[in-house]
Amino acid sequence: MKSIPTYGRFPLLDHIRFPADLNNLSIEQLEQVARELRAETIDAVSTTGGHLGASLGVVELTVALHAVFDTPNDSLIWDVGHQAYPHKILTGRRELIRTLRQPGGLSGFTKRSESIYDPFGAAHSSTSISAALGIAVANHYKAKHDPSYKERNSIAVIGDGSITAGMAYEAMNNAAVAGPGAEKLIVILNDNEMSISQPVGSMSVYLSQLLSSRHFLGLRDLAARVAKKLPESIEKKAKRAEEYARSMMTGGTLFEELGFYYVGPIDGHNLQQLVPVLRNLRDADQIGPILLHIVTQKGHGYKPAESSGDKYHAVSKFNVITGEQTKAPPGPPSYTSVFSKELLKRAKEDEKIIAITAAMPSGTGLDKFQETFPDRYFDVGIAEQHAVTFAAGLATEGMRPFCAIYSSFLQRGYDQVMHDVVLQKLPVRFAIDRAGLVGADGATHAGTYDIAYLGCLPDIVLMAPSDEVELMHMTATAAAFDEGPIAFRFPRGPGLGLQLPNQAEILEIGKGRIVQEMGNQTGKEKGGIAILSFGARLTECLKAAETLTEQGYSPTIIDARFAKPLDTDLINQLARNHKVLITIEEGSRGGFGAYVMEHLANNGLLDNVRFRPMVIPDFFIHHNTQAAQYTEAGLDSASIVKVALKAIGG
Amino acid sequence: MKSIPTYGRFPLLDHIRFPADLNNLSIEQLEQVARELRAETIDAVSTTGGHLGASLGVVELTVALHAVFDTPNDSLIWDVGHQAYPHKILTGRRELIRTLRQPGGLSGFTKRSESIYDPFGAAHSSTSISAALGIAVANHYKAKHDPSYKERNSIAVIGDGSITAGMAYEAMNNAAVAGPGAEKLIVILNDNEMSISQPVGSMSVYLSQLLSSRHFLGLRDLAARVAKKLPESIEKKAKRAEEYARSMMTGGTLFEELGFYYVGPIDGHNLQQLVPVLRNLRDADQIGPILLHIVTQKGHGYKPAESSGDKYHAVSKFNVITGEQTKAPPGPPSYTSVFSKELLKRAKEDEKIIAITAAMPSGTGLDKFQETFPDRYFDVGIAEQHAVTFAAGLATEGMRPFCAIYSSFLQRGYDQVMHDVVLQKLPVRFAIDRAGLVGADGATHAGTYDIAYLGCLPDIVLMAPSDEVELMHMTATAAAFDEGPIAFRFPRGPGLGLQLPNQAEILEIGKGRIVQEMGNQTGKEKGGIAILSFGARLTECLKAAETLTEQGYSPTIIDARFAKPLDTDLINQLARNHKVLITIEEGSRGGFGAYVMEHLANNGLLDNVRFRPMVIPDFFIHHNTQAAQYTEAGLDSASIVKVALKAIGG
Repeated sequence: MKSIPTYGRFPLLDHIRFPADLNNLSIEQLEQVARELRAETIDAVSTTGGHLGASLGVVELTVALHAVFDTPNDSLIWDVGHQAYPHKILTGRRELIRTLRQPGGLSGFTKRSESIYDPFGAAHSSTSISAALGIAVANHYKAKHDPSYKERNSIAVIGDGSITAGMAYEAMNNAAVAGPGAEKLIVILNDNEMSISQPVGSMSVYLSQLLSSRHFLGLRDLAARVAKKLPESIEKKAKRAEEYARSMMTGGTLFEELGFYYVGPIDGHNLQQLVPVLRNLRDADQIGPILLHIVTQKGHGYKPAESSGDKYHAVSKFNVITGEQTKAPPGPPSYTSVFSKELLKRAKEDEKIIAITAAMPSGTGLDKFQETFPDRYFDVGIAEQHAVTFAAGLATEGMRPFCAIYSSFLQRGYDQVMHDVVLQKLPVRFAIDRAGLVGADGATHAGTYDIAYLGCLPDIVLMAPSDEVELMHMTATAAAFDEGPIAFRFPRGPGLGLQLPNQAEILEIGKGRIVQEMGNQTGKEKGGIAILSFGARLTECLKAAETLTEQGYSPTIIDARFAKPLDTDLINQLARNHKVLITIEEGSRGGFGAYVMEHLANNGLLDNVRFRPMVIPDFFIHHNTQAAQYTEAGLDSASIVKVALKAIGG
Repeated sequence: MKSIPTYGRFPLLDHIRFPADLNNLSIEQLEQVARELRAETIDAVSTTGGHLGASLGVVELTVALHAVFDTPNDSLIWDVGHQAYPHKILTGRRELIRTLRQPGGLSGFTKRSESIYDPFGAAHSSTSISAALGIAVANHYKAKHDPSYKERNSIAVIGDGSITAGMAYEAMNNAAVAGPGAEKLIVILNDNEMSISQPVGSMSVYLSQLLSSRHFLGLRDLAARVAKKLPESIEKKAKRAEEYARSMMTGGTLFEELGFYYVGPIDGHNLQQLVPVLRNLRDADQIGPILLHIVTQKGHGYKPAESSGDKYHAVSKFNVITGEQTKAPPGPPSYTSVFSKELLKRAKEDEKIIAITAAMPSGTGLDKFQETFPDRYFDVGIAEQHAVTFAAGLATEGMRPFCAIYSSFLQRGYDQVMHDVVLQKLPVRFAIDRAGLVGADGATHAGTYDIAYLGCLPDIVLMAPSDEVELMHMTATAAAFDEGPIAFRFPRGPGLGLQLPNQAEILEIGKGRIVQEMGNQTGKEKGGIAILSFGARLTECLKAAETLTEQGYSPTIIDARFAKPLDTDLINQLARNHKVLITIEEGSRGGFGAYVMEHLANNGLLDNVRFRPMVIPDFFIHHNTQAAQYTEAGLDSASIVKVALKAIGG
């Protein structure tokens, strides 16, 4: 690892523009490609930051898959998709690889619109088997109706973390019985005993047991078992059976009980094993859906990653030689860390507080909670559905569960929020991180919809802090609130750098706060502009207010704090005393602004105020800096000024 | 079964008000209780209708559980909860049992607000293990902090259909590693080889294999295995071990691999087996989470149910002697059947149409599709997440998948709709049945939220038919639409009885239709009332129009057809030409009305029209007739008249 060659200096990789260029290489040459691909991946990510560890773990697998299969005719689906950097390099995107996760550049995940080699995009986990099965069945159907159509392989690569999600089980449960086509499904379980952090749950224990107790079938048994599956001449059969016997092991009873033909575990970094096994699987028609269990190491082949605790799961830019990551310039603590600290503080005073994460201990800041209260901390795996209802069960017994889940991942537990928590009025606390636009992770991870999908449910209390001090208050308020479900959503990234108080306040439910009283036009005269902000756009509102004040309008600025229940007294007053009422929120249509509008309309107050709801607009906003995303969304201070002036002038 | 005793004539059951009254009965007496309980259940449901088959299958289990366990201190959670009629009879609700599913009466499901014997309500499937685990963990925690608190058992009863859902797997995956408390979790797998229809998937195949290959452990092995788990005296151990040996069998490798202690399968109708096994499980501390596999027969003990195809899953009122069900008076075909027929017709002309259901073949009308096109029909099990992404996979290959899922169940696949379908602009067709209020099934099954949770997603096309002819058109329109995701939502129950045309129309996307032009005040003069209806409230709007016309206002009535994209030309025109604009929809706040409002506001048109959105209000509406529910919701013609008059007069 002394000198890392840069782009344009790789003897083999430089000649590979597309996977077809791998076709005639020997396994030894493929090993060389893998070495070069690893170096190129490291070098590229050192300039962009990104999910390095997972990508390094699948360098050999990527090479082997593209060498053996006929992509893009064969469909290759990477679960989550954050391990697909080497795949992108091999599939025509090498020249763009240093734009990864950059504004206008390549996505950090697989994406259909980016390449025909990405047959199914991802970013959330555990979707690959379902998608690959759909493709397999469709291919079979097409082949049946068009004899010239060659049936294709459909390959899902899924990690040992992702396979713990219920969705993966649903897909496996369906695969073996889905009928013709499903036998072209190959699921590759990429077992690195680590998803983002340590995976949890019985499946994880089970996989470890498989590894530790791996046993080889007798050659004769295996030959017999395999030979009868092969629709070939006896001679070929015998030869092939021998190959199988060399390359296959067995033991995955659980997967076999789910109807899969289990092969493995094999070393996922050894192309001498990987390539022949994949060839066999490719050629073994009618064997049924296959699960190939490979073992890899996250961060493999790069010392700094291998020796790091998180295996360089997600890194910032770094020095290739030393592995040292660029530290973000010192700045205010993140919303996540403020939540984490306040929750811990509350938990010290209240032994009924329980913390639940769905496989995101560090992302949600609950790792700190785990250190202090391991027995009140539950990482349930990538299992948002279970997380929510497990919390509901705890709440029935008087516990005070905090379910800390990202906004876009809570979509996975939506029915459980409605059916198990809200309908039963159970006091589950939802700490919803990554609300609003999230930057480099792009549209898949944006927390755009939670106001709309939660706010339509009766009786839930829904808060959003305008800054990190407010987040402290809301965490404390949620802890103290036993009357029913309560949620607070907060942004990704740093707070404003405010001095944090020693003691958080318990907020009055459903009451907003006046941040800035209207200047000039005061009292009962109708006139002026009111801006009612739900969430962290308040800063932009205050900036907008400065500009507006310069132009002779000194608006009233309100921090709504609550989207539910609404502060109807305050809203009525705003509507009565202003000519223009603007709402703003870091969420989609059908949310806070809609509730304010509905209230005004039903009380005949909408007719006398110019109401303007500002929301994240109705299109997908792709990866970029958060600031640029909000400008694109029209939710920056300039846009607020524009909307206000247009409304007041009209 | 010659004479069914009625309430007040059961020698044993009449003395049982609460489960504690079962405590001192012998197994023979419990058998008598079960017989009486079965007769009482049949008699009650014969007068109310309801989910009879499932309840008859668990009569003995219900008696055994309440006799052995200390409910409600021990928590007993019935998955789905529609099999809980005998449980309701035994837990203080016998006097109300003939109000089941009737307005103001008992719920057809378990419900926390109804009884302390219902520790966790349900109606959607597969939530019980998560909830029971939460309760088990909470109980442990309470006992740890309060030595006087006795640890309790936490029991989930789940069917072989429900256990196919990903959520059940997530819970099982978590249970064995959730730490202290989880060992008090007992999952009873009620295997009747039939949920609503035949269950599907590998789990089902696996369970059948368990049954067919059931084998008994040698007595000595089992005794040894069990004895060491028991914290008792040697003597007692020996005796107990013998009991275990008599009552336990093994073989559930899959469950054992998931960390459960598997016991079974045993005959769930045989109290001589059931009671001792349950006693053993109750007393076997620290054995770990347990899965008891029992085999029952849906509809057991009632000939007409046993011999019926669906085992009387859901029946109308019936004659107890003959089993003959009251036929609904002949009426118009249901929305479901109109959809089903039109889809079939389209599929005959278009071989790319694929139909997908998540375990609801008859409920969605896809059973008809299956008969004609078995190879283009997929029942994926209770697996909405997989259903949606499987459909997305099919769509990538040019298939035209129809995902037919009830509105409230689609909540289970919400993230998949967003992440896999909408974000990728894949042309998956969502046929959303049971939209709006649904009658006797109550709030859990109400399709209230789908407009809000789908409409906030960019680019999805969202339709709702105002009658069954419109539903034909929308089915055909969806089939013809390849540009992206498209959804149509339609009500439970019969259509209007309209003459169905021979050929459905392909609707222009995003265009509404004028049903009734404004009378009196015509032309360019501003005045009058416009009512813009999205969905099947159109009938009520027309009724309201009659009343309004009598009072001198002849409103414009519009069938919006689309909530997305909006017919903005039409809406602009309505806003410009009317004094009052009312929207109405069979959905929650944050939906169609909000989108119309947002459009008007952003275009400065909201300021000159009195806008009134009518939606399903922000509280839960419990089981009742559909008509009464809509009156309660304020969405009947009288309410429309009221809103219109108030607005125009103000």
